[in-house]
Amino acid sequence: MIPRYSRPEMVAIWSPETKFRIWYEIEAHACDAQAALGVIPKESAAAVWKAKDATFDVDRIDEIERVTKHDVIAFLTHLAELIGNEEARFVHQGMTSSDVLDTTFNVQLVRAADILLADMDGLLAALKRRAMEHKDTVCIGRSHGIHAEPVTMGLKFARFHAEMDRNRARLVAARAEVATGAISGAVGTFANIDPAVEAHVCEKMGLTPEPVSTQVIPRDRHAMFFATLGVIASSIENIAIEIRHLQRTEVLEAEEYFSPGQKGSSAMPHKRNPVLTENLTGLARLVRMAVVPAMENVALWHERDISHSSVERNIGPDTTVTLDFALARLTQVIDKLVIYPDNMLKNMNKFRGLVHSQRVLLALTQKGVSREDAYTLVQRNAMKVWEQGKDFMEELKADPDVRRAMSEAEIEEKFDLGYHTKHVDTIFARVFGAA
Amino acid sequence: MIPRYSRPEMVAIWSPETKFRIWYEIEAHACDAQAALGVIPKESAAAVWKAKDATFDVDRIDEIERVTKHDVIAFLTHLAELIGNEEARFVHQGMTSSDVLDTTFNVQLVRAADILLADMDGLLAALKRRAMEHKDTVCIGRSHGIHAEPVTMGLKFARFHAEMDRNRARLVAARAEVATGAISGAVGTFANIDPAVEAHVCEKMGLTPEPVSTQVIPRDRHAMFFATLGVIASSIENIAIEIRHLQRTEVLEAEEYFSPGQKGSSAMPHKRNPVLTENLTGLARLVRMAVVPAMENVALWHERDISHSSVERNIGPDTTVTLDFALARLTQVIDKLVIYPDNMLKNMNKFRGLVHSQRVLLALTQKGVSREDAYTLVQRNAMKVWEQGKDFMEELKADPDVRRAMSEAEIEEKFDLGYHTKHVDTIFARVFGAA
Amino acid sequence: MIPRYSRPEMVAIWSPETKFRIWYEIEAHACDAQAALGVIPKESAAAVWKAKDATFDVDRIDEIERVTKHDVIAFLTHLAELIGNEEARFVHQGMTSSDVLDTTFNVQLVRAADILLADMDGLLAALKRRAMEHKDTVCIGRSHGIHAEPVTMGLKFARFHAEMDRNRARLVAARAEVATGAISGAVGTFANIDPAVEAHVCEKMGLTPEPVSTQVIPRDRHAMFFATLGVIASSIENIAIEIRHLQRTEVLEAEEYFSPGQKGSSAMPHKRNPVLTENLTGLARLVRMAVVPAMENVALWHERDISHSSVERNIGPDTTVTLDFALARLTQVIDKLVIYPDNMLKNMNKFRGLVHSQRVLLALTQKGVSREDAYTLVQRNAMKVWEQGKDFMEELKADPDVRRAMSEAEIEEKFDLGYHTKHVDTIFARVFGAA
Amino acid sequence: MIPRYSRPEMVAIWSPETKFRIWYEIEAHACDAQAALGVIPKESAAAVWKAKDATFDVDRIDEIERVTKHDVIAFLTHLAELIGNEEARFVHQGMTSSDVLDTTFNVQLVRAADILLADMDGLLAALKRRAMEHKDTVCIGRSHGIHAEPVTMGLKFARFHAEMDRNRARLVAARAEVATGAISGAVGTFANIDPAVEAHVCEKMGLTPEPVSTQVIPRDRHAMFFATLGVIASSIENIAIEIRHLQRTEVLEAEEYFSPGQKGSSAMPHKRNPVLTENLTGLARLVRMAVVPAMENVALWHERDISHSSVERNIGPDTTVTLDFALARLTQVIDKLVIYPDNMLKNMNKFRGLVHSQRVLLALTQKGVSREDAYTLVQRNAMKVWEQGKDFMEELKADPDVRRAMSEAEIEEKFDLGYHTKHVDTIFARVFGAA
Repeated sequence: MIPRYSRPEMVAIWSPETKFRIWYEIEAHACDAQAALGVIPKESAAAVWKAKDATFDVDRIDEIERVTKHDVIAFLTHLAELIGNEEARFVHQGMTSSDVLDTTFNVQLVRAADILLADMDGLLAALKRRAMEHKDTVCIGRSHGIHAEPVTMGLKFARFHAEMDRNRARLVAARAEVATGAISGAVGTFANIDPAVEAHVCEKMGLTPEPVSTQVIPRDRHAMFFATLGVIASSIENIAIEIRHLQRTEVLEAEEYFSPGQKGSSAMPHKRNPVLTENLTGLARLVRMAVVPAMENVALWHERDISHSSVERNIGPDTTVTLDFALARLTQVIDKLVIYPDNMLKNMNKFRGLVHSQRVLLALTQKGVSREDAYTLVQRNAMKVWEQGKDFMEELKADPDVRRAMSEAEIEEKFDLGYHTKHVDTIFARVFGAA
Repeated sequence: MIPRYSRPEMVAIWSPETKFRIWYEIEAHACDAQAALGVIPKESAAAVWKAKDATFDVDRIDEIERVTKHDVIAFLTHLAELIGNEEARFVHQGMTSSDVLDTTFNVQLVRAADILLADMDGLLAALKRRAMEHKDTVCIGRSHGIHAEPVTMGLKFARFHAEMDRNRARLVAARAEVATGAISGAVGTFANIDPAVEAHVCEKMGLTPEPVSTQVIPRDRHAMFFATLGVIASSIENIAIEIRHLQRTEVLEAEEYFSPGQKGSSAMPHKRNPVLTENLTGLARLVRMAVVPAMENVALWHERDISHSSVERNIGPDTTVTLDFALARLTQVIDKLVIYPDNMLKNMNKFRGLVHSQRVLLALTQKGVSREDAYTLVQRNAMKVWEQGKDFMEELKADPDVRRAMSEAEIEEKFDLGYHTKHVDTIFARVFGAA
Repeated sequence: MIPRYSRPEMVAIWSPETKFRIWYEIEAHACDAQAALGVIPKESAAAVWKAKDATFDVDRIDEIERVTKHDVIAFLTHLAELIGNEEARFVHQGMTSSDVLDTTFNVQLVRAADILLADMDGLLAALKRRAMEHKDTVCIGRSHGIHAEPVTMGLKFARFHAEMDRNRARLVAARAEVATGAISGAVGTFANIDPAVEAHVCEKMGLTPEPVSTQVIPRDRHAMFFATLGVIASSIENIAIEIRHLQRTEVLEAEEYFSPGQKGSSAMPHKRNPVLTENLTGLARLVRMAVVPAMENVALWHERDISHSSVERNIGPDTTVTLDFALARLTQVIDKLVIYPDNMLKNMNKFRGLVHSQRVLLALTQKGVSREDAYTLVQRNAMKVWEQGKDFMEELKADPDVRRAMSEAEIEEKFDLGYHTKHVDTIFARVFGAA
Repeated sequence: MIPRYSRPEMVAIWSPETKFRIWYEIEAHACDAQAALGVIPKESAAAVWKAKDATFDVDRIDEIERVTKHDVIAFLTHLAELIGNEEARFVHQGMTSSDVLDTTFNVQLVRAADILLADMDGLLAALKRRAMEHKDTVCIGRSHGIHAEPVTMGLKFARFHAEMDRNRARLVAARAEVATGAISGAVGTFANIDPAVEAHVCEKMGLTPEPVSTQVIPRDRHAMFFATLGVIASSIENIAIEIRHLQRTEVLEAEEYFSPGQKGSSAMPHKRNPVLTENLTGLARLVRMAVVPAMENVALWHERDISHSSVERNIGPDTTVTLDFALARLTQVIDKLVIYPDNMLKNMNKFRGLVHSQRVLLALTQKGVSREDAYTLVQRNAMKVWEQGKDFMEELKADPDVRRAMSEAEIEEKFDLGYHTKHVDTIFARVFGAA
């Protein structure tokens, strides 16, 4: 995570201030529950809320931690400074540091997921708008980077919408994976704390209790969470690559929006580079690289070791901040993407009708020509277009073997673009629902 | 995938025979749908089913492919050899190779998922059985590899059960991810084939139609599938590491079953090595390594390129076969795991009562000692146990500062193991449901 | 590793026959050394060589292993069947299984490296030949997929040559990493075997003794080996991506060789897809995916655990076989790549002179125009080319502000292609040495 | 990279101040070379050095960049503010932004490598010191976590020393990989700049000229660099895992240094957790996760795209800072590691002599007992030790079949620990050179 690729709302989730605020809330809610159970005095629990509007002094806590070498103890010491030693006596009772740390991490991940879900909603809206706008903008479909048959630009947007919609559903599931909390004590047995405390804290923090924890919440949950972010990032790369291709000089069917004052290159002022989508390609790698370490984090020793911690201190903020930034950037790119329908038609006609070869092949077969023969017929005319720059339709019309099977009119009919777009509405209905 | 780590049922899914059989079924069902639409003659569609009980000659197809350099054409040529050129004329009409290949791949993944789900059921049953069996078998809980507080062996099994149960749910979701088919033609526009064909084929093959495909089914689905297998593999590693630790010479609380005739080492006949769980640790890495390439496969160029194909030809079989083997092996390990409750108690008592220090600390606090003071009291007595091998309870009883807060009986009460296991039933109910 | 992407010579290195042959040689050489030390009878050592020309019966060894569950014991048992129990008595004395297994694995990796080095020599030769052939074939250089300034096709080949030459040097280093053997006994202390045995065996097998081994040869060596393969694979991807781009329909500056009888697509007979380089893109991912598991293999427990073994049984053959195949395929692609110089010129002229904008900018600066002003001058004329399809040179000539700084002749001189290629010889001399 | 796991010297390499300082030096040296060639006025080149002692105003540059959206232009604009517009006119002439950016990145990586090399020297010194100190401290060697045969603690340190020494050599090679610079213009052809400028700048910056660059320095170099860091990190994990194992409660043969005031756990004051080495385990994952993205960065489009940039902006600082921190932390851990030789002996004797079984087996064979029979003899006595807690030596003495082959004295001789350590000096000489 670097400022260049960060947005403040997501960064704030991972600030020390936010972290200590969540710690505080967990401790305060736990005190309430302990008081309700009669384990600690009601007044002591109430006293903890005195710090409700306090700002926790991060520097002071760091200072204490340098002595104690223990972050939760440092925090509790500072809390005692705020509410008084006497009142602070019952705070954290029966709990272990990880109860606070792990529950907090999950609160942060859930909040991060909520921002990401909002990001995805924005992206989905942009994709839908552009899909509708270009539902009938015909362009050549390409397989292997080679012209195949016509599609529409709207279909591309619709396809990305469907993919991102799946990602949204995956993210909802991933959010649920980490929306658990644990206040279960040193090794998860509730020996020193009643499960009712966990239930109360989780409810207040918007989590469900982890069914069986150790000292920590099991890390398969987080592995799944980060794996899901990796898939979403890969879809971002997918869209980015498409745009980068469409913006290539020789293709130029679409272009990232280029503001009037923007300089493209210090050396070549005419250049408009797809730098945003290239950047997204790199950001996708950054999100994805957290997946394997998150999986390596699953196998902790016995009831926990702390090897996962340094990994999570990094990938927690880094991947959510980067993905948030990437989704926002992609939304902006999609929103403003400049589309060149004329270039699309120009490119499609580069090979004078060759894109219709499949239709002709099919027509010949339907007219009773064997598959092998039809293939030969199409291929020999296609080669003349390819090698000598001839026009495909003219060549077919002039080929007596073809004409034995098809009339001129029949041949011409095979070059109708509408043929290729006749099911676009069907596909749109599948993706966006009936109109 | 190597025979050493393979089981025949999963391997069979990936055999050329199975693949060609699925190709055949897809083509035959497509012909039925085309005939129903009146696109091809009903008799031609019916004729395709003549090969229903045929065995496809893999060598012959390979031979043809060496000439055509195209696998689907090779298959169709061979099919024509089986049912006659005339009858074969309408097979594959309007379809593109990827319609067959991608739908087939998903059929294979779905079948593989079904085997894996059955594997997980077996594993879950074994974990549950062992959990119930050792619900009350007390052993020391460890954080950082260091004694913490008591847990039970049943809690460990219950924890793994809960984790694997989550994995089962994830796998069900992952199966749904790839349970789609596409018969949508060269670039996914249904230009040459009616969507009704896709609907019919998918229904027959146990899939749902892909809402919007290109030449291929979008690869974010497969990325999610393989990512999920990676998470499951990581959980296998988690269990394997636990067992390897418990089997260490100095710990020896559990041991992989060692059959009477088995030789441990050519050099040290007394050795019983946890080779199965070590093996599982390695197998987990093999499954996990497919996750990133599966994500790299998402960003295909335009309406498809074929870069994903070589990756999937490998990771499709490799990860499912390896994971199937690993789940089966782990099930066997769990099923037969030898547990040593006596060693568990012996280990727990290694530090003469130190495991109860947390309870004492808490008790002191509850008696009105400040947290800081209580910590100091516990620590100074703990250090005598640690450094001089003293007995913790005796030291506490002899410490006048402790005694000012707690009576002998109160101290003794803090050393009761039942205290730690009192919520085991609660946790079991969460994991396995009410008894 | 699947047959489709395998070549026999590399596959043979990993066959059971080869493995057992290497095991045998290690055991036999060890016996010689033991006899020379007087540890075992000279006749016994000599007797082992009776099996010199024997073929080891893989099925028989597998059969024995199913009983003993130990592969080296199974092999030794079979060896005794071949040379007699009495003579076999001293075989393997003082050794541990890993002495044989690890030394064998390294012999295999070294042999694999030798094939890969030969592959790279072939690739380097092809790249050099094509570089020389197209040293002066001018084409547009592109940054961000957008036209920048002219380069030559030879420069592209030279660049790939330099990169692959670095990879060759890396592979030589990687080969040296794994060219060690260990015959050091159960935990590497030589307690039961003299270091002289290790020295003798290593010398005979073309290895150097591992300075300090445990039961195994340290795995940082193998991590480095597989990481190096991953870098080489990434360079293959780099070249593959370049060719895929050049073959795009709209670019078509180069094309994979397409044999006359080859069918491109079942549906679109005119298509010539860059399937070989797309395939190489996928194969690169397969080689690369072994890097992280190879690194995870480094941290074995104490003097060894066997978690690395299942990983290596797979990635050893898989990555070397795949990389061998990929290098050979790439060599063939480079060797036969069809280059279209005419299309290169046509593409370069797409924006009527805009590629020379940087030169004009520089010339203006040199004529005393401030950098900012020069930029503005170039940009405003460039925009007319871009937006209105004007000719850049004509616009510049017609711009009075430009003309104040430059004459017509001076402007024309800036559009000379030779300007851009004047240092090609210098660069070639750097890469290939002086002519 | 987060402050918690960072050290200032390495962080400083990646500060904006350092970056701009390097940019400045490159530009200034380039001006010198350009002046020497007569391309720009000598006075202009000299004038650039006016800013030699200036501090570049990062905020001001950022401010300009927000307008220009181009970092190098922003910097040049600010430089002009410092030295005057007139004098700045010739700065950057003929260069492209990447000439500066890429050369700077490599300067930073080289400086980072220098710090890492110094770190490794410190670590190697600590490992050597501890190796010498514990050359003869006998402890049990373990394979599979199970007791095997005796080794010494010094051998463990020596082994880690040898591994880290290999890593040092690898890092020297990796440093050389990235110690190149390029001042070759927009697409690497030197069209607008003489190669002599590159030669001069590289020499001044401690680099060698990149033989053939495009707009960028080829990224296979960086892939190799980061892959090497990944291997080093894996070795750190290897050592960390060893220490974590040795510190386990049941083993307790070594312990991270625990300062008197340090609190182990808020709940269990007696606990001394190996948190530093657990942390190192996680840090290793963080360094390793950069390897795959660095490899994905190799395949840039044509003469460059900018997808690699966001990746490198993160992994450049992150991996070097993390690895620097990890090496320093590991050095401290090794330096102060508390070793418990008594516990080592206690653990070794846990199975009353079983560790000597291999020697007995060998002795029996040498006495003429067949391998199979010897195995049986050893195994049946070993099982009595294992299952009934008998003493191995006593059992052997009491076994008439054993006694037929060996006398009491011969049996006793087989239990001599010195037998196992007799080659320690040989191994030390291999690792550290002759004494």
